[in-house]
Amino acid sequence: MEPEIITSLQNPRVKQLVKLRDRRPRDQAQQFLVEGYRQIRRALDKGFAPVELYYCPEWYPGDQGNEAQLIAAAAAAGADIIELNKPAFAKVAYRERPDGLLAVLPQWRHALDDLKLSAKPFLLVVEAIEKPGNLGTILRSADAAGVDGLIVCDPVTDLFNPNVVRASTGVLFSVPVIIAESEAVRAWLRAQQIRSVATTPAAEGLHTEADLTGSLAIVMGSEQYGLSDAWLAEADETVRIPMAGQADSLNVAMATIITLFEAVRQRS
Amino acid sequence: MEPEIITSLQNPRVKQLVKLRDRRPRDQAQQFLVEGYRQIRRALDKGFAPVELYYCPEWYPGDQGNEAQLIAAAAAAGADIIELNKPAFAKVAYRERPDGLLAVLPQWRHALDDLKLSAKPFLLVVEAIEKPGNLGTILRSADAAGVDGLIVCDPVTDLFNPNVVRASTGVLFSVPVIIAESEAVRAWLRAQQIRSVATTPAAEGLHTEADLTGSLAIVMGSEQYGLSDAWLAEADETVRIPMAGQADSLNVAMATIITLFEAVRQRS
Repeated sequence: MEPEIITSLQNPRVKQLVKLRDRRPRDQAQQFLVEGYRQIRRALDKGFAPVELYYCPEWYPGDQGNEAQLIAAAAAAGADIIELNKPAFAKVAYRERPDGLLAVLPQWRHALDDLKLSAKPFLLVVEAIEKPGNLGTILRSADAAGVDGLIVCDPVTDLFNPNVVRASTGVLFSVPVIIAESEAVRAWLRAQQIRSVATTPAAEGLHTEADLTGSLAIVMGSEQYGLSDAWLAEADETVRIPMAGQADSLNVAMATIITLFEAVRQRS
Repeated sequence: MEPEIITSLQNPRVKQLVKLRDRRPRDQAQQFLVEGYRQIRRALDKGFAPVELYYCPEWYPGDQGNEAQLIAAAAAAGADIIELNKPAFAKVAYRERPDGLLAVLPQWRHALDDLKLSAKPFLLVVEAIEKPGNLGTILRSADAAGVDGLIVCDPVTDLFNPNVVRASTGVLFSVPVIIAESEAVRAWLRAQQIRSVATTPAAEGLHTEADLTGSLAIVMGSEQYGLSDAWLAEADETVRIPMAGQADSLNVAMATIITLFEAVRQRS
């Protein structure tokens, strides 16, 4: 059978790929975009099977030839393989410098009880993060710190936004991520007897003075508003990061890294 | 005297503002762009006087009226004040959502010996950083950690790139920054008897195991290549950050934050 080659910018598949950049069509389709060799490779390596893989040899960056092997792996995982010509791929590519590979993956939803907790649970909870770049960086930090999971409460930017996927550099496929409402998360943490330590500039104690060695959920608030009153009231402890310079020198992603790695230090 | 109002996109001032986005014209003019109320305010507050301030009331975001006061402060500091009409300001604005304020500032160059060192010096040294966003984030981290200065060796992206200025959120005006060649920096550190601790994934010891309490320069390498052999060979100690996840989960800006705040913890 001849493989399909799309050359028309009006092709329904091309139109749907462009639509998947926006949240509503993404949620309706329960799918999302993963662009570029490295990220698609990571998805496959972690057992995530694309529904569709689009490729365009005219956009390949060199002649390393890894693309054919990636396409074969995606096909083996059950993906439809579709070739685009150069203008069609230019239209569907999201990155500034496309490398001729774009996959569509199914979204997933895990529940809190799906989390595999270690003997001394170590979780990161973030509330209402607004900027995709920050959520991507937070995912990377969570991966590097080796948390059992990242719980994203009441997200403003959705996990499957192309900029989150890109900023996460494939970590989206390795860190267990749960999306949930804050109230349900607080109830679940209490039921699991996991101690919550919330970060806020208004706290008295420093993050380095808190005991972060036990069963732990570090809780971080949104860029603009910080943590909601309910989280601050119900957290077992609040801590702050010492700041020498301007009040806003640290953004939420930076504060998250600092707190996570203080926990890593104490727990090691 | 009537203030000047520019309406032509061909006006030489408009053309020069667009040119200042690029490094060569920026270096030739020894000037750079600072856009937006908040950043210009920070520059003025720290005693940096704009050469020129461009404004366009049609782009002001609201009716808070802080703009007039900022313009007056810039004028008092000696800046030429120039009004642009809406299309002219749209042409010179660099940000996605302009707020009608754009300043031109003189570049500066400090020498290593200009640095005011505290009793126990605490410095951050970065080598050949490539991405403006990373250099901006590193500036913010350096400010939050309260270093005596940031030494930028052999920069690939220049300090006065508009994206560095923006990503630094005004910290560029509060952290003392020196631009210098690596070899000169190593000689200077030795002469000052400042201990250098270099971060590299190849190190045996962890950053938390090193003694970061004394006279200290933390040294970080570039995104793509890490630290050069000369830095690795001549550093007093090399350390690594423990990584639970993917090899590349942490980028240089994230690794810098972690190391700086471990030093802050030990030194407090």
